[in-house]
Amino acid sequence: MTMNRQITLASRPVGAPTPDNFKLVETAVPTPERGQVLVKALYLSLDPYMRGRMSDAKSYAPSVKIGEVMTGGAVGRVIDSRHPGFKEGDIVEGRIGWQDYGLVEGGMLRKVDPDVAPISTALGVLGMPGLTAYFGLFEIGKPRPGETLVVSAASGAVGAVVCQLGKMAGARVVGIAGGPDKCAYVKDELGVDAVIDYKAEKDLAKALAAACPDGIDVYFDNVGGPVTDAIANLFNLRARMIVCGLISHYNMPDGYVGPSILRSVLTNRVLIQGMIVFDWHDRWPAGIAQLGKFVKAGKLKYKEDVTEGLENAPATFIGMLEGRNFGKTIIKIAE
Amino acid sequence: MTMNRQITLASRPVGAPTPDNFKLVETAVPTPERGQVLVKALYLSLDPYMRGRMSDAKSYAPSVKIGEVMTGGAVGRVIDSRHPGFKEGDIVEGRIGWQDYGLVEGGMLRKVDPDVAPISTALGVLGMPGLTAYFGLFEIGKPRPGETLVVSAASGAVGAVVCQLGKMAGARVVGIAGGPDKCAYVKDELGVDAVIDYKAEKDLAKALAAACPDGIDVYFDNVGGPVTDAIANLFNLRARMIVCGLISHYNMPDGYVGPSILRSVLTNRVLIQGMIVFDWHDRWPAGIAQLGKFVKAGKLKYKEDVTEGLENAPATFIGMLEGRNFGKTIIKIAE
Repeated sequence: MTMNRQITLASRPVGAPTPDNFKLVETAVPTPERGQVLVKALYLSLDPYMRGRMSDAKSYAPSVKIGEVMTGGAVGRVIDSRHPGFKEGDIVEGRIGWQDYGLVEGGMLRKVDPDVAPISTALGVLGMPGLTAYFGLFEIGKPRPGETLVVSAASGAVGAVVCQLGKMAGARVVGIAGGPDKCAYVKDELGVDAVIDYKAEKDLAKALAAACPDGIDVYFDNVGGPVTDAIANLFNLRARMIVCGLISHYNMPDGYVGPSILRSVLTNRVLIQGMIVFDWHDRWPAGIAQLGKFVKAGKLKYKEDVTEGLENAPATFIGMLEGRNFGKTIIKIAE
Repeated sequence: MTMNRQITLASRPVGAPTPDNFKLVETAVPTPERGQVLVKALYLSLDPYMRGRMSDAKSYAPSVKIGEVMTGGAVGRVIDSRHPGFKEGDIVEGRIGWQDYGLVEGGMLRKVDPDVAPISTALGVLGMPGLTAYFGLFEIGKPRPGETLVVSAASGAVGAVVCQLGKMAGARVVGIAGGPDKCAYVKDELGVDAVIDYKAEKDLAKALAAACPDGIDVYFDNVGGPVTDAIANLFNLRARMIVCGLISHYNMPDGYVGPSILRSVLTNRVLIQGMIVFDWHDRWPAGIAQLGKFVKAGKLKYKEDVTEGLENAPATFIGMLEGRNFGKTIIKIAE
């Protein structure tokens, strides 16, 4: 009998998650009921938002309960289908969770076309992170040619797409990343105009001012915390700040916010707009199609940080929250 | 020879302004040159934004220099005019400053119609505070019937107008004010649905939650600080927060902002939009006309806190920053 390995939430973290917050269990592989599809996971996505799911604080999505399988998107192969839209062998993306086999309602699955790009990209540049970048930047940030766009976590799954879309839109793009490797990638591969290594800079505010001599028009924020504070002082009139992620906050027992944001919001009439990619759910196919064209044409690069083995998911996730990943964090579960 | 009393900025405050930050001086009454109008001040407006002008921190308007007359809007009577649009005796509103007589370019003056309402209202409900409320609420807040609108500094010059416009628009309005007198005014005179005395409440968050059982859709923020923190936790999806004033921050040497705002911005896709009433300068006449109709029809109430005597302006201003005013703070300089 084939067993299904699952990683469940054993306890809620206080501050940074630790390995004993997770538990590996084995159960029988389930059988689909009408409308359901049994998917064998191939690639599991790990994303910062998952830290939120481990907490029982109110958020835009329900928490994972203690003992439940950790939530997560994955790309997999259909093993058994009782939904008319899917057949055995189809490659699909959906919320399979941190496990080898997931039962998913057919209506919640998305078919992945392996001819466009490697199927793992359905978790990154052609998936939620890519869409987050695409809609967040163009629906909220609306950069114009010549404007200055600053992107935090610029080498990350979302940030790397933002950097490139920003360049396509004619903006002057300044990336912020941690460490020389990521910074070189952002500068040389993604082609931004300037990059700031927030780990190396003694005075982040000064470095930002030097990198943004005309101020900041659009800030795509994936991190929050002190980086965001430094940004806020450089906002131009009618600057747009996309509050997309707050990774520097996620591990703090209480929230954190800097000293000067609201002053700048007031004097510069800054628009701060929180966003979740589901807000544009009806337009995902159009977004994917557009992004796919960019990838096919070689205009849109992506980087994946693939770790093999479901059992390595917890450690990889912890490392990602500490910034040890480089590119879209992916767990490769099976060939 | 008639002398012109002026109150100048003697030194910049550290924290709350003190009387020795101001100096009363006497100079000769000036003579208008071509295009200028000499105005005798009748009513001087005191507003929280003036605390910003006393500081040399960058803001949306230049600072007052040491030794300069304190800036401020006033209503006055034209004494001498070398501008074709104004003649002796006209009642006008403009940036006359903290002084008995001001020279103003004619193009910067606005005629006040004494038949609509008492002329002092040109500094309040029919002036900048009224316009701030009108445009901020309807251009940014956009309350719908049945939505919950929370207004801080609800008895203040801006807040009182917001409360009433919110009721006209069909919103459930919750006002926040300090002390039993202000709260009774907000509840009984302005007709809001619930009022919270932030000075009396031990647990502001709890009181707000009780007053807003359906959450908060629009928050018109005049104060910032702990009140805003408590609000942020109650935002509904797509809540709108008008960052109009941050009076609780103005006297802090460094800015202040609470712990939880950005988290709520993210999860609720809150729009935070700073605003300055000048953003809609071209539509001020239309706004004044609309507000004037409301006042004439008795639909729009206003309250003025009038102190007599230019010499009392500093103490009144200091008191206002401490919340000791009740209604639109006005210095009556002359009959």
